[in-house]
Amino acid sequence: MATVTEVTQGHRRTRADRQRERTRRKLIDTGRALIAERGVSGLRIQEITSRADVALGTFYNHFSTKDDLVETVVGETLTEVAAATIPEPEQHIDPAEVVAGAIIRFMGLADRDPDFVRLLLNLSHADVVFATVLYPYARTALERGIEIGRFVIPDLDVSLTAVVGGAFALIREILEGGHKGDVGKAYARHVLVSFGLTPQDAEAAWKSAAARITS
Amino acid sequence: MATVTEVTQGHRRTRADRQRERTRRKLIDTGRALIAERGVSGLRIQEITSRADVALGTFYNHFSTKDDLVETVVGETLTEVAAATIPEPEQHIDPAEVVAGAIIRFMGLADRDPDFVRLLLNLSHADVVFATVLYPYARTALERGIEIGRFVIPDLDVSLTAVVGGAFALIREILEGGHKGDVGKAYARHVLVSFGLTPQDAEAAWKSAAARITS
Repeated sequence: MATVTEVTQGHRRTRADRQRERTRRKLIDTGRALIAERGVSGLRIQEITSRADVALGTFYNHFSTKDDLVETVVGETLTEVAAATIPEPEQHIDPAEVVAGAIIRFMGLADRDPDFVRLLLNLSHADVVFATVLYPYARTALERGIEIGRFVIPDLDVSLTAVVGGAFALIREILEGGHKGDVGKAYARHVLVSFGLTPQDAEAAWKSAAARITS
Repeated sequence: MATVTEVTQGHRRTRADRQRERTRRKLIDTGRALIAERGVSGLRIQEITSRADVALGTFYNHFSTKDDLVETVVGETLTEVAAATIPEPEQHIDPAEVVAGAIIRFMGLADRDPDFVRLLLNLSHADVVFATVLYPYARTALERGIEIGRFVIPDLDVSLTAVVGGAFALIREILEGGHKGDVGKAYARHVLVSFGLTPQDAEAAWKSAAARITS
């Protein structure tokens, strides 16, 4: 649903703005397709512009380097996962279940799409991209949990950084072949208990989330 | 105190072994001094060997690259901090207090020695060095807590990775100027609650640890 601000901005955007946005979109989509085909190391800027049918110099109107484009592609993919994972507040799903579900999905990424996760972890600013994209979604879920008395989190910023940093470290270890068993379940439990749930409550929230995701 | 194994090994070590160990030690100490003087970026292998008074080629008998030496220096410094932080099990200090104290010290590193921490975070394998050095110490403290019923940690490996990964992410943010207030206290609380302590117990453990450290 478009907000008032978006509509207002839409009216203000000129034809040149829209053209510029389309070109940027084409570069990102082409970059993403090429990365999927042969990975980042084989990616050449000239190949992107050639396939997107724009001048080589145009690339630099939108991105400063190849890595800049790659970061954008990864950030967008991560945003899609986050948006699909975190339900809208008006759905009134238990915040504990929301957190468990998000953790299950993100930990699962390492199994479902190891190439993407490897790409993410090898970015020079992986942690920044990870944090920038995920913090707003995670913060919303946590704030709702605090509001309705489901979570006790005295320092939201510290907990947010700790939870995302921990997830990052675990995903890295999974990719490197460490950790057997259901890491997502164990980590969801660890996080929910750190938010003040009893182990039994954390277990129940994990089960509901897992059932909702696979249903 | 030398163990039987060390003494046995000592008998078996030849003069050449001891000489080799002395040279390695000299390279590490010289590297550490030069890093302290002017940082890693200005560090040149030739300068290390020249000041340590060994042939340039000798460096490569001990380290494959400059970064290899830097990793060793950082790993040793981290080990010293860990060894000074974690008390011996026979001292029978409350494991919750041990964990809180370790977190206070490590978070405090970012304030006490930002140059060292920046060096640590900029290593290409920072997380590996961090984990390799800290896991054994942290594992000992956690296992004792589980043994005496102070901690409930169903999956020790997942919790270990999460706790160290979270600390890493927080230290990075502190260095980048984020997080106001006492991050060490907030994180110690978060971790201890994740280990099954009540917020009140976590608070008390933090206070004891802080008192012991400053006394």
